[in-house]
Amino acid sequence: MGVVIKGGKIITDTDSYYANLRIENEKIVSIGSNLEIEGDEVVSAQGCYLLPGAIDPHTHFDLDVGSTVTADDFESGSKAALIGGTTTIIDFATQSKGETLKEGLNNWHKKADQKCYCDYGFHMAITDWNENVCSEMEEMKDLGVTSYKMYMAYKNVLQVNDLEILNALNKSKEIGALMCFHCENGDIIDFLINKAKNNNQVSPKYHPITRPSEAEAEAVYRLIKLAKIVDSPIYIVHLSTKRALEIVTTERKNGAEIYVETCPQYLLLNENCYEIDVEDEFEGAKYVMSPPLRKKEDQEYLWNGIKNNDVDTVATDHCSFNYKGQKELGRNDFSKIPNGSAGVEHRLSLMYTNGVLKERITLNEMVDVISSKPAKLFGLYPQKGTISVGSDADIVIFNPDYKGRINAKDQTQNVDYTPYEGFDQIGRVTDVFLRGNRVVKQSLICDKYPGGKYIYRK
Amino acid sequence: MGVVIKGGKIITDTDSYYANLRIENEKIVSIGSNLEIEGDEVVSAQGCYLLPGAIDPHTHFDLDVGSTVTADDFESGSKAALIGGTTTIIDFATQSKGETLKEGLNNWHKKADQKCYCDYGFHMAITDWNENVCSEMEEMKDLGVTSYKMYMAYKNVLQVNDLEILNALNKSKEIGALMCFHCENGDIIDFLINKAKNNNQVSPKYHPITRPSEAEAEAVYRLIKLAKIVDSPIYIVHLSTKRALEIVTTERKNGAEIYVETCPQYLLLNENCYEIDVEDEFEGAKYVMSPPLRKKEDQEYLWNGIKNNDVDTVATDHCSFNYKGQKELGRNDFSKIPNGSAGVEHRLSLMYTNGVLKERITLNEMVDVISSKPAKLFGLYPQKGTISVGSDADIVIFNPDYKGRINAKDQTQNVDYTPYEGFDQIGRVTDVFLRGNRVVKQSLICDKYPGGKYIYRK
Amino acid sequence: MGVVIKGGKIITDTDSYYANLRIENEKIVSIGSNLEIEGDEVVSAQGCYLLPGAIDPHTHFDLDVGSTVTADDFESGSKAALIGGTTTIIDFATQSKGETLKEGLNNWHKKADQKCYCDYGFHMAITDWNENVCSEMEEMKDLGVTSYKMYMAYKNVLQVNDLEILNALNKSKEIGALMCFHCENGDIIDFLINKAKNNNQVSPKYHPITRPSEAEAEAVYRLIKLAKIVDSPIYIVHLSTKRALEIVTTERKNGAEIYVETCPQYLLLNENCYEIDVEDEFEGAKYVMSPPLRKKEDQEYLWNGIKNNDVDTVATDHCSFNYKGQKELGRNDFSKIPNGSAGVEHRLSLMYTNGVLKERITLNEMVDVISSKPAKLFGLYPQKGTISVGSDADIVIFNPDYKGRINAKDQTQNVDYTPYEGFDQIGRVTDVFLRGNRVVKQSLICDKYPGGKYIYRK
Amino acid sequence: MGVVIKGGKIITDTDSYYANLRIENEKIVSIGSNLEIEGDEVVSAQGCYLLPGAIDPHTHFDLDVGSTVTADDFESGSKAALIGGTTTIIDFATQSKGETLKEGLNNWHKKADQKCYCDYGFHMAITDWNENVCSEMEEMKDLGVTSYKMYMAYKNVLQVNDLEILNALNKSKEIGALMCFHCENGDIIDFLINKAKNNNQVSPKYHPITRPSEAEAEAVYRLIKLAKIVDSPIYIVHLSTKRALEIVTTERKNGAEIYVETCPQYLLLNENCYEIDVEDEFEGAKYVMSPPLRKKEDQEYLWNGIKNNDVDTVATDHCSFNYKGQKELGRNDFSKIPNGSAGVEHRLSLMYTNGVLKERITLNEMVDVISSKPAKLFGLYPQKGTISVGSDADIVIFNPDYKGRINAKDQTQNVDYTPYEGFDQIGRVTDVFLRGNRVVKQSLICDKYPGGKYIYRK
Repeated sequence: MGVVIKGGKIITDTDSYYANLRIENEKIVSIGSNLEIEGDEVVSAQGCYLLPGAIDPHTHFDLDVGSTVTADDFESGSKAALIGGTTTIIDFATQSKGETLKEGLNNWHKKADQKCYCDYGFHMAITDWNENVCSEMEEMKDLGVTSYKMYMAYKNVLQVNDLEILNALNKSKEIGALMCFHCENGDIIDFLINKAKNNNQVSPKYHPITRPSEAEAEAVYRLIKLAKIVDSPIYIVHLSTKRALEIVTTERKNGAEIYVETCPQYLLLNENCYEIDVEDEFEGAKYVMSPPLRKKEDQEYLWNGIKNNDVDTVATDHCSFNYKGQKELGRNDFSKIPNGSAGVEHRLSLMYTNGVLKERITLNEMVDVISSKPAKLFGLYPQKGTISVGSDADIVIFNPDYKGRINAKDQTQNVDYTPYEGFDQIGRVTDVFLRGNRVVKQSLICDKYPGGKYIYRK
Repeated sequence: MGVVIKGGKIITDTDSYYANLRIENEKIVSIGSNLEIEGDEVVSAQGCYLLPGAIDPHTHFDLDVGSTVTADDFESGSKAALIGGTTTIIDFATQSKGETLKEGLNNWHKKADQKCYCDYGFHMAITDWNENVCSEMEEMKDLGVTSYKMYMAYKNVLQVNDLEILNALNKSKEIGALMCFHCENGDIIDFLINKAKNNNQVSPKYHPITRPSEAEAEAVYRLIKLAKIVDSPIYIVHLSTKRALEIVTTERKNGAEIYVETCPQYLLLNENCYEIDVEDEFEGAKYVMSPPLRKKEDQEYLWNGIKNNDVDTVATDHCSFNYKGQKELGRNDFSKIPNGSAGVEHRLSLMYTNGVLKERITLNEMVDVISSKPAKLFGLYPQKGTISVGSDADIVIFNPDYKGRINAKDQTQNVDYTPYEGFDQIGRVTDVFLRGNRVVKQSLICDKYPGGKYIYRK
Repeated sequence: MGVVIKGGKIITDTDSYYANLRIENEKIVSIGSNLEIEGDEVVSAQGCYLLPGAIDPHTHFDLDVGSTVTADDFESGSKAALIGGTTTIIDFATQSKGETLKEGLNNWHKKADQKCYCDYGFHMAITDWNENVCSEMEEMKDLGVTSYKMYMAYKNVLQVNDLEILNALNKSKEIGALMCFHCENGDIIDFLINKAKNNNQVSPKYHPITRPSEAEAEAVYRLIKLAKIVDSPIYIVHLSTKRALEIVTTERKNGAEIYVETCPQYLLLNENCYEIDVEDEFEGAKYVMSPPLRKKEDQEYLWNGIKNNDVDTVATDHCSFNYKGQKELGRNDFSKIPNGSAGVEHRLSLMYTNGVLKERITLNEMVDVISSKPAKLFGLYPQKGTISVGSDADIVIFNPDYKGRINAKDQTQNVDYTPYEGFDQIGRVTDVFLRGNRVVKQSLICDKYPGGKYIYRK
Repeated sequence: MGVVIKGGKIITDTDSYYANLRIENEKIVSIGSNLEIEGDEVVSAQGCYLLPGAIDPHTHFDLDVGSTVTADDFESGSKAALIGGTTTIIDFATQSKGETLKEGLNNWHKKADQKCYCDYGFHMAITDWNENVCSEMEEMKDLGVTSYKMYMAYKNVLQVNDLEILNALNKSKEIGALMCFHCENGDIIDFLINKAKNNNQVSPKYHPITRPSEAEAEAVYRLIKLAKIVDSPIYIVHLSTKRALEIVTTERKNGAEIYVETCPQYLLLNENCYEIDVEDEFEGAKYVMSPPLRKKEDQEYLWNGIKNNDVDTVATDHCSFNYKGQKELGRNDFSKIPNGSAGVEHRLSLMYTNGVLKERITLNEMVDVISSKPAKLFGLYPQKGTISVGSDADIVIFNPDYKGRINAKDQTQNVDYTPYEGFDQIGRVTDVFLRGNRVVKQSLICDKYPGGKYIYRK
């Protein structure tokens, strides 16, 4: 009554070896040879890698940004995740102004409930800090929320000030939660957007110019100093520049506890995407996200950062909008283009083809940043994030022999383009087990009903 | 009808040589031998140094801080300046909330007019940024104001936000003015003061703990990044820590134009002053200033910074309050102690005895930081700040043979203590010429009426 | 016919989980539950950790240093290793002047053959570089030698010059070998020893003064630049200072491939050991090793370096001499004291008690630096250095409940003192399996004959 | 009987002002207005700058390099110097192997005696260190030699080892002399030259490839660490890279006393000079000098270094060889091309046109690096290096209105090319006074006989 996966090569964040795997009651129960017990189903993984299910700690599904709502909701988003080998996502439940944290969390539970095909958790984004929120943070632990996010950008909308950051870090330190931060100086951006508009610079190519690397470096440095005041760890989401990473590594030497996330888009795309050499320069809108795409040297530095353990995780910041009808809202004003792009489906593929096969990182390092480290940082480990006895049987069978290309028309994500259009894809996920249940077979969703579970994180 | 000063050794920021000096019509007209013309008065400076009159670019005379007014006004302050060899001060005229810049400037003109014994200029402190202030900045040039100050500390009182800094720097860049900044993160300080008070930590020794070096480092780094956005030079007042100076020197290598001021108190006093080992621990209130006194290693680093040209100027931040009656306002709450201390009278002496004679800096380097560099940065050069043909005859005769001590009871400053009580004083100013007029003779003021002139700076 | 170890918690460099382990034919064949096959021996590890056998990549057994021979040979040394949980050592076979590499290697094979109780490999130390040596390096691969060592210190004895280093790195790059370096500037040391002797400074406390941190920093920086010329990886043995580690981490950001080893003595002892406050100041001779013990801040920085992945391995540089009769050779001249100390027996204990229990590092990080990383760097992985299916069954059962102290009188090492005398020891190795054979039982060697095998490294 | 120069603007390293100047008995006796005494000669400098005579602390006149002798001897070299506004040179007297320092010095005195048109001094280059040389260093002070040079490059020829450097620095520290160093790692260069030749890479473009920036950075870092051991100041000649200057500035923060020289060729020319796009790629030989020309970013960094006071002096390293007949010695082997190029004539012009007029540095900063700072560092100040009362009347009248170009055919230097061929030249020296004697008039030498004097330096 168990399942035995045979003939694959098991890859964890540190080891690579051939062995069979036996699953029972949603868990991995043994690894080795001769594991089969009568009645077990046997699955062959001959010639394939067995990876722990990937974890995407940064998604925005079903997010209302005011002028529109993201193209992917929890159904399409979680299906795309599974197809791409991601078995758990952590989305950002957001407190709106005037709400309590619990109200914010409940809103997100409603969005995901009975719709999510992969397992999921929620970080809580705090946009309206006050005494009550401070008290609520303690109760959130029982609701499975152990991480938070604040924005240093989006002045007058989401942006919090230094005193609010200090108070939140002080509380998170006390209760053992981890605070995540969007690090860009919103005042700089506000200043530059105004300046651009005054000069009638309204096309997408002005987006990156109004969000220079200084805005990120400044916010990162400031945040680290604030965290130092209360001696609290921090997690920096979607770090995008060499400069910011240099600051982090320098400060770590002084003992600061800082975790860094980057995304495939900052590793694989760069500012040239905004210099659209086609009929319609508005095509650049597809790459309007924050932070913006950076320089080639930033890309290389971030890859090197994964290699050197300076970058902890690679998440997607999946926040998809259709080019038609949605991105187009900012046709006459780049600052009105909804920010964000799609990626939850292709992270593993992108990292394998462009990271592992190009020898920038090893297979083990890939597993570390897309699965093991997110699990460890966000209270999912060792339940998830590794292939070892006792862990959830979230297993990805990955066939390295496949050769293809990424195309919007073939994707499961519910959006009309992908920023990786035409990228080579070598290897692909053929089967996925979510807590022992086969949910992807022959690279297709085979689960009829949403089987994702909300995970209470520690 | 001229004056010839004979027998002295002329010291400029770079040269040291024996020569005579002839003065006519407020100016130096020749340097060398055989300069005397019939009718000239001859003054002997045998055995003495001839220094260019010192310039103190950071004083607060007659300043109302809400709960009280500084002990020194323009009369006592400017007399003390002259006695100490300072012939020009630049005070901070301050715009109060709701005022125009011109109203602020006029208020300060009223304070100084007919009262100031030394020459003087005004920086303009901006506390209430708006469109109108922005426009006014252009007109201020004709009023002789070419430098401004903003505060990154004193939350809810003087503190400006990043967007205001950006707009002000943008404007100053446009009109060629120089912006000065008090660099401490006011939110950090606010957070820590609240925390201290909640823990009933109210004595003066908690003052430095609530203004840690991180607060300065953070503000310095942020400011440099903001300045980079608009490519504008900046001047950092009273920089006090190694850490902050390291940031400055690193960023200069990247081409940033940053000027740094420190003060005698940060070179000569340190945090031990707060650990008062006497009956009344409130004595520490004498050293309550912002930034607070730092560590010994900061002192050494700042001295080294002068040596290496990393520090540009040494000013006093003279802002005196009596211990009795004024500092005592904060007896039960250190945050209510008026911030600041006295120094305008002793700067040259302190730098000579503790800098030059201890071989930390040369005589020329001393002249540079207390006279030439302030003149150059704030539009007074070559009218002031050097001994060369054509310059104002602001001449200090300094006798290196004097040996004494600094004592509050002997000082001209109108305040009941000095933070340098009992410090050795080797050498002293015997005579001072202000634009050719002898205003100090035998170390006493000999000018009966205030002869100071407002200097329109360029 | 297999062995099943039950009830332990398996610790690898990344995972920690409860599972059983089955061994057959020297290998681990399965991990999980229900693994037992009829006829298997069952060993209980209840309440214990199961660690991969530790690997010590830096020992000097049976080394003739001219005036004397190390106290430990391969027999006593390898027994001590096993008792301490180390199942594999890599010793330094040394080419003497005039010898070929093969002659040097053969000499070491003779020392170890039939005497070594643990598995072993050899690095090759090159002291006499020439064309022939260069050619021999290729053939050494077939003899299982894939790593080399050169000395930048010991002028006129072992020290090589920059051109020799360049040629050796060039060759190692070509054949895929890894070069190890003792990084201290021998000329500086020579100069300072002469100076000390001229001043009649001959007691052990002058040893560290003649080997200042600058000598290490200089050599490390130079080596990195030389390696850059030929684009070759390097391994720095026994790195001991903050300064040197800072150089390494800075240069890594520029893409240099540098591996760093430190030792328990640099993590746990410091220069105070030389300030002997007893009758006989010659006691300091016990700590005469090269590099010398450093400052407390260096210790903290190195611990932090392990935490941050900046330090790759912790080896012992075990090179033992008796205090009586051997160290005493330098009673009248510290430079004649044989350099080195003992440690192979206590590495795991020291790291557990002082690293893991003091929360400087995690259990997984400990396993990484004492087992997994040495295996990976020196061609032993995945045969050794991990607990995973297919690996050698080198398993250590570690009981965390033991409480005792380190004492020379109880040690297996054949030397009359230990630098860690009186140190707390929490937890200890109770059983060790070497390729499936139980060689330690109840903390005693239970193997009658030397069962160590020479390992051909890749 | 004196000379009065009227109407010029006096430029020192810090001041700029209009004044007249009176000269008597080789000295400047007064500065100001109304200085003329009956019988004085009056020289008009209307519209011109008056600069202190420039000092070139790095020339090689009449140097035998084995295969040939430099094109310029002391006659042609010193005339070129004067034409270019340089009134004092310091040449490198060199001890050959087996010689005493005094023999070396005497050889150079013979070369210069009765031939030198400008004033001159000698540094002493030590190539054969021994006990006797060490003792001689004390006696050299009486012979006017207070600075030395050692080479870290030119293996087996001039290169000294670290122990020799330590001993020499130790001695120089004791006697108060200043040691200069050619900082390139000779072993790296030797290795790369062999490699290049083995690959049959023999044209001039391989010269820079065999002397990479790492070779300079390594030597600079090593030297600083060696100097730290004996706590001695050092002077780095012809520093050429950003990387090396970064090391210097970092180490200065730690208190090291390091002086840095660069040269016009490193400020104005770059590696593109070796990519000769003409018939004969051997043209690159004109730029074969050591260190080689570097990258554009190095140039900018060095300019910025002057601005920031990180670079102390700009010297020429004038060491000229004709292209025809001399450079051609290396036609089939770049390593046989005599190293060096010409520059003593054009330094002031180049710095004015490309530094001052392009606003990279101010006029005062130019005077500092080409005159005042060399004088101060090498014991010539205040006799030379400034325009102040009591100094030698070494005065340059510089007409800023001239517009022309630099051409080999017009030069006074006795060499068949100039690396600055076709460079714009704005402004030029019209008159030069050497100790009060007019030696250049209307841009032509007007002194019939060599009037240069050997200067005993302090």
